Parts: sequence; structure tokens; C-alpha cells
Amino acid sequence: MHSLHPLFFPSSVAIIGASSDPERIGGRPLRFLVEAGFAGALYPVNRSGAAEIQGLPAFASLADVPGPVDHVIVAVPVPGVEAALQDCARKAVKVVQIFTAGFAEADAAGAELQARLVRICREAGMRMVGPNALGLLNPSAKFYATFSTALNGLRPKPGVIGMATQSGAFGSAAYGMATLRGIGLSRVIATGNEADVDVAECIDYLADDADTRVICAALEACKDGARLRAALRKAAAAGKPLVIMKIGRTEVGAAAAATHTGSLAGNDAIYDAVFAECGAHRAASIEEMLDIAHLCAVTGQLPANERIGIMTGSGGIGILMADDASDLGMVLPPLATESAEALRELLPFAVPANPYDTTAQVTSVPDGVARVLDAMLLPGSPFGTLFAYLAHVGLSPSRFAATERRMIDIRAAHPDRPLVLVMLSEQGVTERLEAAGVAVFADPSRAVRAIAGAARMARLRRGMRSGIAAASGSQPLPPASTEAEAKALLGAAGIPVLPEQTCTSAESAARAAHGMGYPVVAKIVSADIPHKTEVGGVLVDLPDASAVSAAYRTLMSRAAERAPQARIDGVLIAPMVRGGVETIIGIHMDPVFGPMVMFGLGGTAVELFKDVAFASAPLTAAHAMSLIDAVRSSALLKGWRGGPAYDTQALADALSRLSEFAVRHADQLAGIDINPFVVNLQGAVCLDALISMRQAPANPSPREHT
Amino acid sequence: MHSLHPLFFPSSVAIIGASSDPERIGGRPLRFLVEAGFAGALYPVNRSGAAEIQGLPAFASLADVPGPVDHVIVAVPVPGVEAALQDCARKAVKVVQIFTAGFAEADAAGAELQARLVRICREAGMRMVGPNALGLLNPSAKFYATFSTALNGLRPKPGVIGMATQSGAFGSAAYGMATLRGIGLSRVIATGNEADVDVAECIDYLADDADTRVICAALEACKDGARLRAALRKAAAAGKPLVIMKIGRTEVGAAAAATHTGSLAGNDAIYDAVFAECGAHRAASIEEMLDIAHLCAVTGQLPANERIGIMTGSGGIGILMADDASDLGMVLPPLATESAEALRELLPFAVPANPYDTTAQVTSVPDGVARVLDAMLLPGSPFGTLFAYLAHVGLSPSRFAATERRMIDIRAAHPDRPLVLVMLSEQGVTERLEAAGVAVFADPSRAVRAIAGAARMARLRRGMRSGIAAASGSQPLPPASTEAEAKALLGAAGIPVLPEQTCTSAESAARAAHGMGYPVVAKIVSADIPHKTEVGGVLVDLPDASAVSAAYRTLMSRAAERAPQARIDGVLIAPMVRGGVETIIGIHMDPVFGPMVMFGLGGTAVELFKDVAFASAPLTAAHAMSLIDAVRSSALLKGWRGGPAYDTQALADALSRLSEFAVRHADQLAGIDINPFVVNLQGAVCLDALISMRQAPANPSPREHT
Repeated sequence: MHSLHPLFFPSSVAIIGASSDPERIGGRPLRFLVEAGFAGALYPVNRSGAAEIQGLPAFASLADVPGPVDHVIVAVPVPGVEAALQDCARKAVKVVQIFTAGFAEADAAGAELQARLVRICREAGMRMVGPNALGLLNPSAKFYATFSTALNGLRPKPGVIGMATQSGAFGSAAYGMATLRGIGLSRVIATGNEADVDVAECIDYLADDADTRVICAALEACKDGARLRAALRKAAAAGKPLVIMKIGRTEVGAAAAATHTGSLAGNDAIYDAVFAECGAHRAASIEEMLDIAHLCAVTGQLPANERIGIMTGSGGIGILMADDASDLGMVLPPLATESAEALRELLPFAVPANPYDTTAQVTSVPDGVARVLDAMLLPGSPFGTLFAYLAHVGLSPSRFAATERRMIDIRAAHPDRPLVLVMLSEQGVTERLEAAGVAVFADPSRAVRAIAGAARMARLRRGMRSGIAAASGSQPLPPASTEAEAKALLGAAGIPVLPEQTCTSAESAARAAHGMGYPVVAKIVSADIPHKTEVGGVLVDLPDASAVSAAYRTLMSRAAERAPQARIDGVLIAPMVRGGVETIIGIHMDPVFGPMVMFGLGGTAVELFKDVAFASAPLTAAHAMSLIDAVRSSALLKGWRGGPAYDTQALADALSRLSEFAVRHADQLAGIDINPFVVNLQGAVCLDALISMRQAPANPSPREHT
Repeated sequence: MHSLHPLFFPSSVAIIGASSDPERIGGRPLRFLVEAGFAGALYPVNRSGAAEIQGLPAFASLADVPGPVDHVIVAVPVPGVEAALQDCARKAVKVVQIFTAGFAEADAAGAELQARLVRICREAGMRMVGPNALGLLNPSAKFYATFSTALNGLRPKPGVIGMATQSGAFGSAAYGMATLRGIGLSRVIATGNEADVDVAECIDYLADDADTRVICAALEACKDGARLRAALRKAAAAGKPLVIMKIGRTEVGAAAAATHTGSLAGNDAIYDAVFAECGAHRAASIEEMLDIAHLCAVTGQLPANERIGIMTGSGGIGILMADDASDLGMVLPPLATESAEALRELLPFAVPANPYDTTAQVTSVPDGVARVLDAMLLPGSPFGTLFAYLAHVGLSPSRFAATERRMIDIRAAHPDRPLVLVMLSEQGVTERLEAAGVAVFADPSRAVRAIAGAARMARLRRGMRSGIAAASGSQPLPPASTEAEAKALLGAAGIPVLPEQTCTSAESAARAAHGMGYPVVAKIVSADIPHKTEVGGVLVDLPDASAVSAAYRTLMSRAAERAPQARIDGVLIAPMVRGGVETIIGIHMDPVFGPMVMFGLGGTAVELFKDVAFASAPLTAAHAMSLIDAVRSSALLKGWRGGPAYDTQALADALSRLSEFAVRHADQLAGIDINPFVVNLQGAVCLDALISMRQAPANPSPREHT
């Protein structure tokens, strides 16, 4: 049994700090549980020694409670929490929720106290939610163990959507909106400070929980990337749709900004990448999250593909939906031949296209709407999802009754394909249809957006790679403070670099150039000059030996003049590369998620349009190809406007090797920039590289970022 | 009085083709009018000669109706429509709605018949809606003159939002959704085939109509751009918010694709530009349209600026709203000093920032929420709009009553600033607040999106230029089939071009080059070779006279070999330009909206990211500067990453002059591409140009596109 099970299914519950005032933090949960008719044992505990609290026999201490207690709610002021937890440990309580605030979120003393609470729980084998938690709900067990004032105005009903949020207020907003829409919930939990139980572990629980068929989650920050990844993957493996929100798009801290790649990352892009890799759909708003979750709950499935068919009685609405769909990456294939023939016979005046505009003729054909849908779903039908725009028929239930039954039959006959009705309808009509697995939306654009989100999730899950290996590699890495050292290391890791040479005299520079063939490039080499062009430290297109010797002298004198403090290793001589497409590849060492591979094209698209993509390391060459495809500018590599196709395979290989290198040395790296990495018609090559190492001694555990 | 007034306020109405069957097209409007209790005279007309139809005295022909008839609904089959309209003309009817379909939308014969209907109306001075119209509504007059089955399930109530749509089905969807949300409507009209009355004219009417304070509109295609522009501007001048949808993003027809500019236009970008110039907000979904319209109806105003303040009881929701707001171009300035001080005193534990997170402390302060809002609105407050996230308090009306009254007082004390409450609430609470001008939203993201749309509309209206002159210029234009001719014309129009020369011998080429100074560029000149590089027709960086002579011979022999049929005018010699930023400027001759100026940067941003912007011609240099600013890549012109600032003033001047040139020659032009137009540190210059002329004789009226 999952260790969080007693959180939701306790047979006995005590509230330490229970209050007779039903408006106080210690009074509200008791009131909600009594009002709802929770069937388990309920023990109010208050050291005041009152004999009765809110009509229930009360106890002065937990120890006085007869028999075992599964679940304890602690709602006493900060100074009493530690003692309360010790009481729980002595009573062999299984799970504790701490509602009290004023711990790690408040100050250092609070953080210290919170750490002591964790120790007490660990030693006693108890699980703890909070501190600073708002509570949890299990409507099927009438267990409303929260002090949220939301319960003053509404009571969530049982359903199949489970919800885990860090912020209780955010969770209340989400389940409040769900409840007002008539959407039921299996479990709801707010994790607060996450000293022990975090959102990831709740997702893990919900993935196991038989009553939960769809999962909603919301994070403000994640401390344990590996645990989150594993939980998301578990939900995907369990076939449970998962819609997640990540609130706050603050930039990553200074530690991560050691490289250009790091500064491009921002943690938002990293969360996007991790969610996508783990088959979760990130929603931009609470409403979008609920739309997708409810759609999945009603249909019980994700669409098998991104192909949709649209039947409509309004040309305009059909076009609106088609435009929305293609904006969201959905596809509208033509009708199958058999369908087109059947429709031509059924409604001769309508054009058998997709969207299929029935014209007003459909109303003059008995059972017209249903027969159109039947035809659109004939064998050979390409649609993963079928939409029917039915205007306002659901507002006239008696006129709609026959069609309603036929919609339910069609759904039953095509269990593999979500059927989505877009119409205005009375609540009763909607409920009957949804109970039979037929989704109903009022707004056409929201219907399309919800299906697009679900279909995207299905696609992500189909393409999901098996687990990302923990990136704890700590293979020793020699220093790489200069471009030459960095390239040598990357070359050794299998990333193509040029045959270049660091020279310490004008003569040796000319000799090196002679061996490579002209023209060549000369660059100053110094760990103290990371940005060579700023001191005029790069000279290109040198045609002969005398130009090379002159370049050597120019660079050395410029360095002496413009960076007098810099220790100079010499001048790098390398073959001049022409042509090809400049790309940027890099590694961002994320403090939560470990090494992330970055890819973008050279030029300004990266900065102006944020046209970059990230993926967790390590990456196979095949997955690197998907990373390349995720960047819009990659079109320039693939035969742009009749131009040539560049060697994306060489690029993918390099990305894969770079990712493996990053994993091997995860503990020592701060980040890597390879800019430019030039992709040629055949092959690809690194022209400049910067490896940034961690300043502090290697830190074996991922750092927290808050 | 507006000529459309009798459409909505008839004192007497006849229905030609009235039916006893309340489910038929001729029966439904009669039923709806009777059921609703329309107070005017109602005359069913049916040539069957029935004495009574649906309980009302009926007439065999319109002529038999005693007394005048203002408004006639025609619902007879196609063959009877013309005669019915002649009856109306004889009866001196003011307005006619034709519900019958099967005209221009069906076939050529239908189009011809429709043209005859228009003639009858014009001659009789009657106004006509349709044919193929679904009807119109004026809820305040209980006038439901439609055959839409939407009225079977709902009846729109009076309100201040007027709605004009081309498609009746689209309109039904929109007013149906509005009605289910409790949103009232002043007028609703569907224009169908728009043989006479179009959406633009309805907007014009709604701009005058005293009951209408907010306008919603939806178009599928516009035939008269000038009329639409004028109507949108009139709504803006009347201070009535206008939210519009344009359905269908098909590309413009072949006529417009004569130039690269034309192919980039697509009519979607053109509609975007026109709507924005005329101060209308384009909505992407029906829900967004209703959200913004309802917000404006409730608050009775547009926000004065894009600065918002957010009060929140949930840190997470505050961050979500702040992120949404900045995505949509809104700004969150810090609290005024006075506000921050007051809040520090009121809630010492909360940080006086924006969003202002009250923390749970606010609940322990009497009247806390209202006092926080008071403090945020102290003198010096920078906020154009104030949001308050109040969770679910509106679901407990008695607990909320005191705060509710305070919210209404605060709104009254700050009539210049919309106050938006984001909370779950009972319908009664919402209605009381909204009646007092306080907006209420359940979903935080939708609240922010609605305010952002309204604030954007206000900004567009503040920046609106005075009317666009009708672009009917037909000043004669000499031929411009070659680059040289095109540049000569543009140069004469004040657009900077290089001092270049078309030469017809190697010697004259060398002489010309000598006069310009080296290096120079040589290009083949032929009206038959529009794409010179494809035949190797351009040679650059020619350093001296012998290179120029050789280039002349090379180009002539390449042309002879690779384009043997081409008539060659000679070789163009021009100074070689280095440096600067390449831009693309052009003119798209839109068949509906006339000449539109296009701007984008060279490189791939135009194609990959559609990073271009359009504006109606003519354009002052100041408005050209806004056009430049609307393109994201323009950052490269303005000191990108510490680089130099280029001469955007010279660019703006060129755009303005090009726009005036296009207006002067609107009748003859098909389009203009200037690519590249190089912007230097000082000045700018056209390096290549293509002027495309209309093939057919100049057409004085804008062509239709469908």
C-alpha cells in the first residue's frame, strides 16, 4: 500500500488544536468533516481540557485518545508543533498534516524547526504534509480535511480527477472552479512547504490510485527533479493523462548564468522540456487545465492521433475551428472516399470536405446529424477525434432527445475515437452525454484547444524515451580554461574539432599553417580573455606564411596592450572554414534537473525569437534529431527555399556526444557553449568552445533553487 | 435618423410567406414575435389566402394590408422573392429582410437575381438585409425577427452590447453564449449575403445607437474596405469599444501574389493592420470577444493605460496573473510611495510590492481587503486598472456582504479606474457588483486577458491617425519593367537610390564606374529577367576598369547563353555598398483595402517567423516609425547588443514616400518590392527594386475577393 494512502483513507483522525470556534483554523476542518458526514472516528484534541468540542468528545492530549489514530491534523501555534509531532510519533500515527505556518517560508529559525520536524517523522516512520499546508480532500470518503474557506461556499463531489498542488490557495481556486462546473474530484492535496511529501510524490500516489483516472498538478518550484521526472513518467506509464501548471517564470539563479546557454535557459524553458519529455501537458491557465482534464475524464482516453474531422452546421464556425486546430498543430485530412460517397448521397448540396458543412439541408433529412457522423466514421476514416458543431440544440432537450441517444450510440460504436459536441445545452443534456463518454463544449475554440492539448500529450507519450539516467557522473576532468583546452576535451569526446595548434612563436605559427593549408585563422589563447573579439584577438583569412607571422605579432602586441594583465598561452592557428550553417550547441547545468542540452541556430533568432530548444542529457542521436526539429530555424538546415540539405546527422551525433560528455562530468561542469558549431553539407565542426567549471568543490546532491 | 433604424424599431411588420407551421422558416419569426409580446402591428402574408395564421389575421398579399408597413420579412421560395420585393416597393416599405437563400451564394443565376433585388430596393429607396439572412433582434422592443432555432431554447435580454455578424449561425453562437452567461444585448443582426446592408453599415448604425455602448462584430469577408474603415473609426470616435472577429485565414488570391510582399501579406495580416489602425480589437475566439465586450459593458470605459495593480491573497495566483499580464504587454509598476507606507502600517508582514500579496494576515484585520485596495489607490497610484484576487468569498454572500458594499464604494470613488474582482461567486453577488460597475471574473487568466484587450484597444485609439485618404490616385506612371526603370521612378519619388547607370558597351561601363569610384557592382538589365541571380546576372566587388569591362562581357554572354530569348537593355553599373542592415520594404495592393505598406528585415526572420508588419498607405514618417517598431527584428537597427543605432529616420522617410507614391499610382500598381533596402548609420538606400503593374486596364473600383 502506498505510504500516502492513510492521508486520504484514515479510519481515525485527530485534530490537535481543535477549536470550538468553527471559523478558526483548528475549528474549520472539524466543522467540514462533521457537516459532510465523515464516517471515521474523529478526535478533537485541545490542551484546554474541554470535554466537548463542536459536539464531539474532546481530549486534552493525543495520548488520551483511545485506540489507534491514523491521521493527525496539527493546528496549534508554531511553538507547540514540535511537541504535537512527538505526541504523534509516540501514538504511532501514520500520517500528519501540519496546517501551522511560520517555518521555512518565514525565516531561518523556522527552517531549523522544520528540519527538526522532518527528523521526528523520519525516526517514527510517519509521513508529513506541510508545514504551512492547507489540507486535503477525498470526496468519495467524505473526508474534507482542510481549513480552506472554499468549503464554506462549496463542497467538491467525487470524481476521477486527482489534484496535487504546492500552494493551497492555488489548489482551492482550481477545485473551486472545477466544482462550480460540476466536475468531480477523486483526491485533492496541497503540499505547502513540502518538508516531506511533495507534489511529485502525490503524483506518484495518484498514478497508483484506482479512483484517479486523470491528474492535475501545479508547482511553484521543484526541489527534486529526479523525483518529479519519475512521478510524471509513472503517470504516463499508468495511462493517466496529466496536466500540469508551473507558476512563475523567474530566471535561474546566478550559478546557472555562467554560460550563454545558461542565460538562454531561464527555468521556464527547462520545465517545458522536462514536462514534454515526461509526457505531461503544461497548461497556461487554470481553465485550460480543467478543460483538458475534464475532457480526458469524460472520454476516458487520449486521442490516438492529431487528425480531426469537423462536422458543422455553420461554415463560419467550421473555419474558426479549423484555423484554431491548425494553429495548435492538429491536422484536418480529407474525408475517406467511402465517407465522401455516402455523404454525397445523403446531402447532395453539401461539399464533402473537412470541415464538412452540412448546410441547412441536414435539417430536412430525418436523423441527419447522426447519419452524417456515421458516414464520417465509415471504415477508412482517418480521424482520431470527431467534432460536431450543433449550435444550440442542447437547449431544447425534447427536440434533441432522439439525436442525443444517437450520439451516445455512435460514441459506443467508436470507443477508440473521442466524439466532441460543440453546442449550447442544458445541464441535464450535458450530464447524460458526458456520462456516456461524449464530450460537450460551449465555446468552439476551447473545444479545439482541449483536444489539441490531449492529442499533444498522446504524441509526447508515444515519443517518450526510457528513463533519463541520473546525471551524477563525476569522472575527473582536466582543466579547460582556454578555447584550445576546451576543444581538445570535446575532440576527445568525439565532437568534431579542427586540426589546430597553439603556437608560441611567429615561426611555429607559420609552420603550423603550412601543414594545414591556407587560408588559416589566428586567435589569441588565454584563460584570462574569454571574449577574444573584444580585444581584437581573432584574425581570419590569412593567405600565406608571411600573413601568419604578421598576425602572430599583431595578436601578441594587441593582447599586451589591451589586456596587459592576461597570461597568454600563445596563438591558435586553425584552418579557415567557409560556408556551412552556424549553430549554437551547449549544456546548461540545471540545479534541479541536471545537464540539459541546448540547440539553436546562429544569427539572431536565438535572441530575438527565443528559437532554442532544450532536452535532458543524455540524448541519443535519434532524440537529438527531435531536438533539432523543435527549433523553427532548423528549416534553414533542411533544403531551405531550394537550397542544399546540411548534415543534420553529424549535428545530431555531436549533440548526443556532448550530452554524454556532460553526464560523465556532471559534478564538475557549470556549463558548455559551442558557438559556432558549423554544420556543413558533409560533416560539422566546432569552431569555438567554452567549458565553464564549478567554482565550489563538487557538490554531490543537486542544489536547491528557490 | 439612421436609415437602418426601422430595421430595429418598426411600428408595423409584415411577414411575406408567413406559415401556420411554427417550425418553418416563415412560421418561426411569427411565433417568436408573438411569444415575446412584440407591441407593434404584425401582418402575416400568405398567398394561400388563409384568413388567420398562428392566431393573427392574415392577408393574401402585402397590398391588402391596411395602413403603412415599415419592415417586411420575406420568407418565400426563390422564385417569389422578386415579386415580393416589388410589392414592398409599391407599399413604400422602409426596410426588408430577405430570409430566402439561393442567391449569389449559390450560383450565377442567383447572383443575377440578387442584383435585380438590389436595383428594386435602390429605386424604391428601401434598405435590404440579405438575402440569405438569419434575422435580427432588438430585445428592448421585444422584437425577435429571426428564424434562428436558437430562440427555441433561449431569449436574449436587453443590454448594452450590439452585435453585427455576416453569418447568422456565427451570430447565434455568439448571442447564445452571451445569453447563457446573463449578458444582455441591445441589437443583434446577421447580414447574410450583404447585397445592400453590410456589417460595416451595421457598425455605423450601432455607433449612433444610444442604447448600444459596446459593439461586437464578425466578418467572413469584406467587400468595401473604405466603408469598414469608416465604420470602425466612427465607433472609436463615439467612444464605443469594438471587438471584432475575422473568420477564415485564407491567402489572398493570385492577383495579389504578383510580388513577394503580396505573398507575405495573406489577408489575415492585412485585416490585423486595418483593425488596429481603426482602434478595434480583434478577438481570437467567441469567448474572448464576449469577455472583453462584457468587461467594457460593466465598467463603461476602457482602461486609461496599460499599468495594472494586483492585490492577491495567493502568491501563486498573483504570479500567474503577473506573468499573463506581461505576456500581453501590460505593465506592473511598483506601488506609489504613499501606498507602500500605508500598507506597511496596515499589514506589517506583507511585502509592499506589486502583485501585493496580503498574506493570511489580511483576514485578521477588520475590513482588510477594502483597506488594502484603498491604500493601493492613494494619490500617486500609477494603476490604470486594479485587480483583486478574492478566492471564493463570493460563494458565501452573507460573509461577503460588508466587503461587497465596500467594493462598490471603492469603485464609485475611483470612476476613472476599472476594478476587477477575480473570485468565485454566486450569480446574485456578481450581478450586484456588475450593476455597480465592478467587473467579476472566475478565471484569473481570462480576467487579465480581457483587461489587456481593452487596454490595447485604448492604446490603439490614442495612437489612431486621422482618416486614411481614399487611395484612388491614378496619376500616369511610365513603364517600370526593369530594375533600372523602377529605381528611376522611386528615386524621383524621393526614395534614396544609388547613382547608377545602364551601359551598353564595355567601354561605357568602365567610364561609368570610373565616375562613381571603385568598387562597383554590375547587373544585367532586362525586363525578361526578373530574377537576375538565377542566370548569374550579378557580379559584385569589381575593383577596377578592366574588371568592369570583363564583367560587362561576362554578363552579356551569360545572358545570351542562359536567357537567349530575353531582350537585353544593357548592364547596370552601381557603386558597391558595404555594411548597413538589409531591410525589405514594399507595397501590397490589397483588393479590398488598397495600398498597404510592408516592412521587415532582411534575412530569414520574415519567412521563418513572419516578422513583418503592414500599415495602410499613405503613412507619415511618424507612423512609419510605429510600423518599424512593430517588427521584432527592428531591435537590430536600434543598438542591438551594444552595436550602433542605424538611421531609422531615413528608413521611416522612405516608407512614407513609398506609401505616397503607391497612393498616387494606386490604379496602375500591382505591387512593389524593394529588397534589399539598406539602412546605414547615416542614410539608407534602395539596392534592388521591382515594380509590378496591373495587367488589365486600370480598374476604378476595388475588386472583390471571396
